[in-house]
Amino acid sequence: MALIVQKYGGTSVGSIENIQKVAERVIESCERGNRLVVVLSAMAGHTDSLIKLSREIAETPDPRELDVLMATGEQVSVSLFAMAVKSMGYDCCSLLGFQAAIHTDQFYGRARIRKIDTDRLFKELEENRVIAVAGFQGIDEQRNITTLGRGGSDTTAVALAAALNADLCEIFTDVEGVFSADPNICTHAKKLKRVSYEEMLELASLGAKVLEIRSVEFAKKFNVPIHVRSSFTRNEGTMVVAEDREMERVLVSGVVFDRNQARITMVKVPDRPGIAFKIFDPVSKAGIVVDMIIQNTSAEGLADLTFTVTRTDFQEAIELVREVAKQIGAEKVLGDQNIAKVSIVGLGMRNHAGIATTMFDALSKENINISMISTSEIKISCVIEEKYTELAVRSLHEAFGLGDEKQED
Amino acid sequence: MALIVQKYGGTSVGSIENIQKVAERVIESCERGNRLVVVLSAMAGHTDSLIKLSREIAETPDPRELDVLMATGEQVSVSLFAMAVKSMGYDCCSLLGFQAAIHTDQFYGRARIRKIDTDRLFKELEENRVIAVAGFQGIDEQRNITTLGRGGSDTTAVALAAALNADLCEIFTDVEGVFSADPNICTHAKKLKRVSYEEMLELASLGAKVLEIRSVEFAKKFNVPIHVRSSFTRNEGTMVVAEDREMERVLVSGVVFDRNQARITMVKVPDRPGIAFKIFDPVSKAGIVVDMIIQNTSAEGLADLTFTVTRTDFQEAIELVREVAKQIGAEKVLGDQNIAKVSIVGLGMRNHAGIATTMFDALSKENINISMISTSEIKISCVIEEKYTELAVRSLHEAFGLGDEKQED
Repeated sequence: MALIVQKYGGTSVGSIENIQKVAERVIESCERGNRLVVVLSAMAGHTDSLIKLSREIAETPDPRELDVLMATGEQVSVSLFAMAVKSMGYDCCSLLGFQAAIHTDQFYGRARIRKIDTDRLFKELEENRVIAVAGFQGIDEQRNITTLGRGGSDTTAVALAAALNADLCEIFTDVEGVFSADPNICTHAKKLKRVSYEEMLELASLGAKVLEIRSVEFAKKFNVPIHVRSSFTRNEGTMVVAEDREMERVLVSGVVFDRNQARITMVKVPDRPGIAFKIFDPVSKAGIVVDMIIQNTSAEGLADLTFTVTRTDFQEAIELVREVAKQIGAEKVLGDQNIAKVSIVGLGMRNHAGIATTMFDALSKENINISMISTSEIKISCVIEEKYTELAVRSLHEAFGLGDEKQED
Repeated sequence: MALIVQKYGGTSVGSIENIQKVAERVIESCERGNRLVVVLSAMAGHTDSLIKLSREIAETPDPRELDVLMATGEQVSVSLFAMAVKSMGYDCCSLLGFQAAIHTDQFYGRARIRKIDTDRLFKELEENRVIAVAGFQGIDEQRNITTLGRGGSDTTAVALAAALNADLCEIFTDVEGVFSADPNICTHAKKLKRVSYEEMLELASLGAKVLEIRSVEFAKKFNVPIHVRSSFTRNEGTMVVAEDREMERVLVSGVVFDRNQARITMVKVPDRPGIAFKIFDPVSKAGIVVDMIIQNTSAEGLADLTFTVTRTDFQEAIELVREVAKQIGAEKVLGDQNIAKVSIVGLGMRNHAGIATTMFDALSKENINISMISTSEIKISCVIEEKYTELAVRSLHEAFGLGDEKQED
């Protein structure tokens, strides 16, 4: 008898009919002898309409109260789901953040889970109940409602699996699993059977939207096996698990891209100690994350400093940087929002030389210019012109032979 | 500096605009030096749409989960309201049932408040915050969400006023106060300035919909003065307070009616001891409340037994009674749903004879037949044919001189 935590996203519970289908699927798993804890997101569209409502009340709604409002989304899903399961003759009870004792810090809208008290959860499991836990929400020390931010239900599921020492965490979503590339771009993209936490972390942070990055960090830390799969089919998806020897043989697991990228260049910066701090301090204080940074120093003691931020943060970042540029006497500040980041990820990179060369070669053959490069142990990212995104992904996918072998590429 | 609990109903918070108006009104009261605890209902229509949603999932939705679902209605109102107050520059925080520590028994859908822990409430008041409490909801001993039933927000408000030892409980609603009769029927109905808890209890249980009866019981028990008034005007409403000498001089305070009535008659029942128990035991076990009961015994040892229930319970009740009739050998069972109950209420009845006579006389002058009568210390109720309801109310209103003296009746 296995203890399984399942998570269903907003589309999976997007209608009464879909909620009933999820209930049936959960009951099937119970009938195979499993004990089930089911984490649900808000019904698709619900969260957005709540945000809209709050904006009608106040331009910048109070963060504490916004979390109280947002938390109703998952409360609706879990209660309807529990009704569905009960009406099918199985015992079930919903638990909200405060009832499941999901304790977080106090950062409204982006809280982090600190601890889960499992007493109530184990009590309900012992009563042979399916437990439906509201994803995305918790409580802080003062019993205020907090939310974990978009995609937080994945984190709820993995954190619960870790706290309950569950055998498996199944993440049901609207895609079939993790692919070697976006199947909308590479028609022959292959579903990966197994991928390591490390690779998944890179894939998630570099643009793959299939799992929320914090949930993968949690899974890695507590060694929770994750099965990412479709809620609309019965096919096996992708297992996200600890690294093993088999995995290291794979040079490149996948190609990912991210269009939410923009570049800012400060031209002819006096190259003195402390300059980088002066430039990046106001940016980081504004909560803006800087991704890649490149500095070219010229002979005259003047440097060009280039860095990337998300396109969402671009406007705010460039205004802050223009302010600094005036103060330190840089010549000018340039911005470019028509860029994309294309990356390859694979455990095998650690031990194999020549992978970067293959990547650069594939891109140059298509006359795609690389403006920035960043590498880690298991990934290489290149910034290119946005218009070449699909071409770059397809070329790299082919160059590393990632396609489904059964089909012609 | 007074501590005031205010309650606003569903229509008062039925739109973003209305929520903002409530926020303004609350702030006005703060600026007059008061400390405010504000209890809100769900936005008008919200509760009904949640019920509809639950019915799509299951014919008879699980009561525990229905309460979890219902509780989101007030959660939405209080969070939006708190955002509105904060955006106007005043500090405010919302508290849900579990945060305001409103402890109830475990009867889902109709829970009763047992105790309120006021620690958090006083803490927030000391921080000079307006507190927005979600009406209608609480938690049981196991921290399950419970709801108090329709109109439960009135009870929340009065219970909070009692627990906090507040100076006043203001119930804002869509009418101007308590009237001598329904102004839709008697155009010259008079707004009552003051009414006793006892009278209000009778008025509420006999058909006046302005206050939920349990809230009046609470107010009486803890001597909480209630001010019932309109959320759409600034006019004074009706004070519901402890009885005083002045009130006893008023013979009749108001005329009320209730159309949700039906009559069941069991004809020619063998008149043996224990028969009444046999008839009413299954009815009460089905949770059906029997109101008036009349028994006429004839010479042959056969009785006719007539009683009233709400029209909502009529079908279920008559089926149960038909079953009993067969068992005990009664001749037949008759039902009548075209009846109404008209009542007069007044503290002065205690010490004055002749009030019943005046009532019967007024009805007979209009040729209205009285089929059942029930009396208590401060009320007289008559069951009549439904079609005479308005006529009866108007005649009684005039017979006891209850109209507004400034206007012609």
